[in-house]
Amino acid sequence: MQPKLTVHSDTAAPNAESARHVLSLPGTFTMHLGGELQNVQIAYETWGKLAPDRSNALLLFTGLSPSAHAASSPADPTPGWWEEMLGPGKPLDSQRFFVLCINSLGSCFGSTGPSSLNPETGKPYALSFPTLTVEDIATAAHAALATLGIRRVQVVMGASLGGMSALAYALLFPGAADVLVSLSSATHSEPFAIAVRSLQRELIRSDGAWQGGNYPSGDGPRAGMRLARKLGMMSYRSAAEWLERFGRERADSAEHEPFGLEFEVESYLESRARAFVGGFDANSYLYLSRAMDLFDAAEHGGTVAKAFKRLKLQKALVVGVETDILFPLHQQCALAEGFERAGIATQYLALPSKQGHDSFLVDMDRFRPAVGDFLAAL
Amino acid sequence: MQPKLTVHSDTAAPNAESARHVLSLPGTFTMHLGGELQNVQIAYETWGKLAPDRSNALLLFTGLSPSAHAASSPADPTPGWWEEMLGPGKPLDSQRFFVLCINSLGSCFGSTGPSSLNPETGKPYALSFPTLTVEDIATAAHAALATLGIRRVQVVMGASLGGMSALAYALLFPGAADVLVSLSSATHSEPFAIAVRSLQRELIRSDGAWQGGNYPSGDGPRAGMRLARKLGMMSYRSAAEWLERFGRERADSAEHEPFGLEFEVESYLESRARAFVGGFDANSYLYLSRAMDLFDAAEHGGTVAKAFKRLKLQKALVVGVETDILFPLHQQCALAEGFERAGIATQYLALPSKQGHDSFLVDMDRFRPAVGDFLAAL
Repeated sequence: MQPKLTVHSDTAAPNAESARHVLSLPGTFTMHLGGELQNVQIAYETWGKLAPDRSNALLLFTGLSPSAHAASSPADPTPGWWEEMLGPGKPLDSQRFFVLCINSLGSCFGSTGPSSLNPETGKPYALSFPTLTVEDIATAAHAALATLGIRRVQVVMGASLGGMSALAYALLFPGAADVLVSLSSATHSEPFAIAVRSLQRELIRSDGAWQGGNYPSGDGPRAGMRLARKLGMMSYRSAAEWLERFGRERADSAEHEPFGLEFEVESYLESRARAFVGGFDANSYLYLSRAMDLFDAAEHGGTVAKAFKRLKLQKALVVGVETDILFPLHQQCALAEGFERAGIATQYLALPSKQGHDSFLVDMDRFRPAVGDFLAAL
Repeated sequence: MQPKLTVHSDTAAPNAESARHVLSLPGTFTMHLGGELQNVQIAYETWGKLAPDRSNALLLFTGLSPSAHAASSPADPTPGWWEEMLGPGKPLDSQRFFVLCINSLGSCFGSTGPSSLNPETGKPYALSFPTLTVEDIATAAHAALATLGIRRVQVVMGASLGGMSALAYALLFPGAADVLVSLSSATHSEPFAIAVRSLQRELIRSDGAWQGGNYPSGDGPRAGMRLARKLGMMSYRSAAEWLERFGRERADSAEHEPFGLEFEVESYLESRARAFVGGFDANSYLYLSRAMDLFDAAEHGGTVAKAFKRLKLQKALVVGVETDILFPLHQQCALAEGFERAGIATQYLALPSKQGHDSFLVDMDRFRPAVGDFLAAL
């Protein structure tokens, strides 16, 4: 499908990102907790073809930091963040589904976010960007699909924040999706996860280079982002994985600054954190991170049970991982039970993956069949 | 017992800390990984009376941050950090034991540490303080007890870092203790704990006020210490405790800085972190924190099993907590099994406390009987 009218391929990086489309939402976008945005842009990529009866759309939301480039395609052959999961013959089979991956509202990979220019001032929104919620991410995606003429998707899915966005989509727009797939996500954030993310945000804000959010475009609090990413890695992976992988192996480091790297696990965190810095806008990180804390499905009805009564899903798949400390298994179990009680045919899988919250990105041997078998049976 | 000769009551704060004694170790103190200290001071407090045959000494090592003031006494009626555990009729019964609590070498509550004046320069050691190990803490305590005429203690014990110090004491000085009590400790640090502490140290070092360790006495990297303490709290407590205690309760805060406190768990961390800052020397924190990472009992024989063959303990008690993510239960289990295999009569208790690593400080209803019954049966 080639979208028309307000849609254009991204021209910022024509070679590297020629698979990325950007569309404009018509009119004023009103935020869930107040505030408005004008001229909202939503970036997305697609794989496969929309069936003539428009019945095969699969809407994929991302976690906090990925772009819409979930997988390679003829238009952009570089590997995506879910390369092993999406494509011809893969679990998200592009020979069967028309897959759309949306860059979340508030992010920094083509969709409108704090680093975007405010059309009213000509300057980046920075902290004048209104409070972002998961509901806004879902609403912007829904409006984007409407612009593309897709009123109903067969499957809405996502992992982590993406699972929250998928759930918000199903809650806000009953009937707009038939099937929901939630991976390592939850109906709300628990205090440990809030604490981790709160400290990450504080590390970014504590970096003088943040300048109250008004850092120069493309620059920003690199040291704070690096520290926040290290803390993130501690919550994304698991102690069991690191024990097996690193044990007490010493770092092979030429650096000898006082209290510098001694152990391989420290070296690993340093290299992962350095790789992350510069690729993600700090203010987007703050807004998306807080949106995860704020999300609570119970607010859509008083309790989760009441909220879920409005759902018009036919089926759901809920997958969690035993070693996840950010979205622990008991939250996956509660989510699945909530779906069941709401009369939705639900499959619940508790995977023994060792890589914690990040398992959906790395433990492909478990996640491929978990998702693939479910989607194949639809 | 009133120690003589090189021992004097601390004169720095005569009213508040009149229970604190400080003794000087004779000669040069050679550090485990190299380097020397002259005129080492060791601060300690005592409870109860040493029996005429000197058979009832109980040596208590502390965790990373406490002073030697474990409990109140006539000389200092202010509550100590283990007030409910130590005193007449309490688990560490001062009517039976002569309890000595030692301020660790490298700390900042009377014992020589990085904030002490180097007698050769007249300035604080700061980063010229040699690399500190758990072995040094144990050796300094052993020398202090020798100065007091105590060559053998009935019990050596400690929690967290204190448990490591107690184990190092038993390994380095076989026969110097009959019984070992290890609470929420381990033979070594695993990569997750190393990662947490490494980032804590980096947060302190990243604070410009640290000045490469050369901050003015009594001042220092307050912001870095506050952030490090927040991260510490995440590793000291448990997600289960916070879920029960805070849920999604909102903060009752008058502050409205951008991305400031939204949830009660954030407010709790902020208040706990603020209370900690200023009370602990930042360089001491760095040295003691790294000492925990570096400790590995296996280095005393090639393997833990070989190292433990040198132990001359008669009995051991090993207590751990199910929700501890810093010193997880499988490490307690391995420690207890190691003692058993070395022929030491060992009692192992896995407590279902909800407060994580800090449970030994707060879940007194479980830790009092766990420790008290064991000691009473000696």
